[in-house]
Amino acid sequence: MNRLKLPALDPATVADVRGCGYPEPFRSRMGDRSKKKLGDAAGLTRFGVNLVTLGPGGQSALRHWHTLEDEFVYVLEGELVLVSNAGEQRLTAGMCAGYRAGHRDAHHFVNRSAAPARYLEIGNRVDGDNALYPDDDLMWCEDEAGVFAARKDGRRYAATDSGAAD
Amino acid sequence: MNRLKLPALDPATVADVRGCGYPEPFRSRMGDRSKKKLGDAAGLTRFGVNLVTLGPGGQSALRHWHTLEDEFVYVLEGELVLVSNAGEQRLTAGMCAGYRAGHRDAHHFVNRSAAPARYLEIGNRVDGDNALYPDDDLMWCEDEAGVFAARKDGRRYAATDSGAAD
Repeated sequence: MNRLKLPALDPATVADVRGCGYPEPFRSRMGDRSKKKLGDAAGLTRFGVNLVTLGPGGQSALRHWHTLEDEFVYVLEGELVLVSNAGEQRLTAGMCAGYRAGHRDAHHFVNRSAAPARYLEIGNRVDGDNALYPDDDLMWCEDEAGVFAARKDGRRYAATDSGAAD
Repeated sequence: MNRLKLPALDPATVADVRGCGYPEPFRSRMGDRSKKKLGDAAGLTRFGVNLVTLGPGGQSALRHWHTLEDEFVYVLEGELVLVSNAGEQRLTAGMCAGYRAGHRDAHHFVNRSAAPARYLEIGNRVDGDNALYPDDDLMWCEDEAGVFAARKDGRRYAATDSGAAD
């Protein structure tokens, strides 16, 4: 096998990342979820492109919407349930979904099948973006020390291993 | 078949677009190329996501780089030759490439196989972006009436059916 050179990239050479910025009890709900940060690996900064593998029972994220970021997902393999205000819809390989910035239709993928599913997730990067979670007692707040997770009554969750909202 | 509802989208329901903003003799070189504008169909504005089908002999674009836009491509089907400063590389399903804004490494895909190839192309949208073409006598200029295509000595090409640079 000859190795690809940038700008080309073989996802097999990109690390699988399992981190998650949510505090408990939300973090565990994501289940078996790993991401290859393809856009970062190619040196992109204006948007992110992740190749996500979601095992049976896994979730893409808490159901959420973004204030300033458009998001797009394209299913490559397996079967996923998209939950949004339109209800539940089953997506298989070759189907996609798009979520525009500021549209108050919270969404996530759940893998209710018995096999892993794979998809690409794309989101532009904007300073000041926030993610909101209508189903869960979680919000992101910011003080002089940075971003932190809090309950909706303002009480902080214990510090997490990452401040990244998703 | 039950129809998907937004935010979910079945690409089969999205129109194939064959337009091209290049003047001749460049336009014809693109060959058999059609695009489904999935991001637009989902209402996204911050970046575009196109599902592109490139027939044998087709090209994704003239070899180019963007001043302000990151681009990313993910191959879904078939076989493509990526031409960039790294030379020629063969990409098959599951491989990808990323081109960061302002990086002077012009790139394009050529389908030298006997079968159609399909890929996703993603690019963020920024006012003032320009595309530059080191191999071809083409540049985009702007006057009070808008953007137009010119030779590199400044002489205009005849008006095209679209001013879109790609």
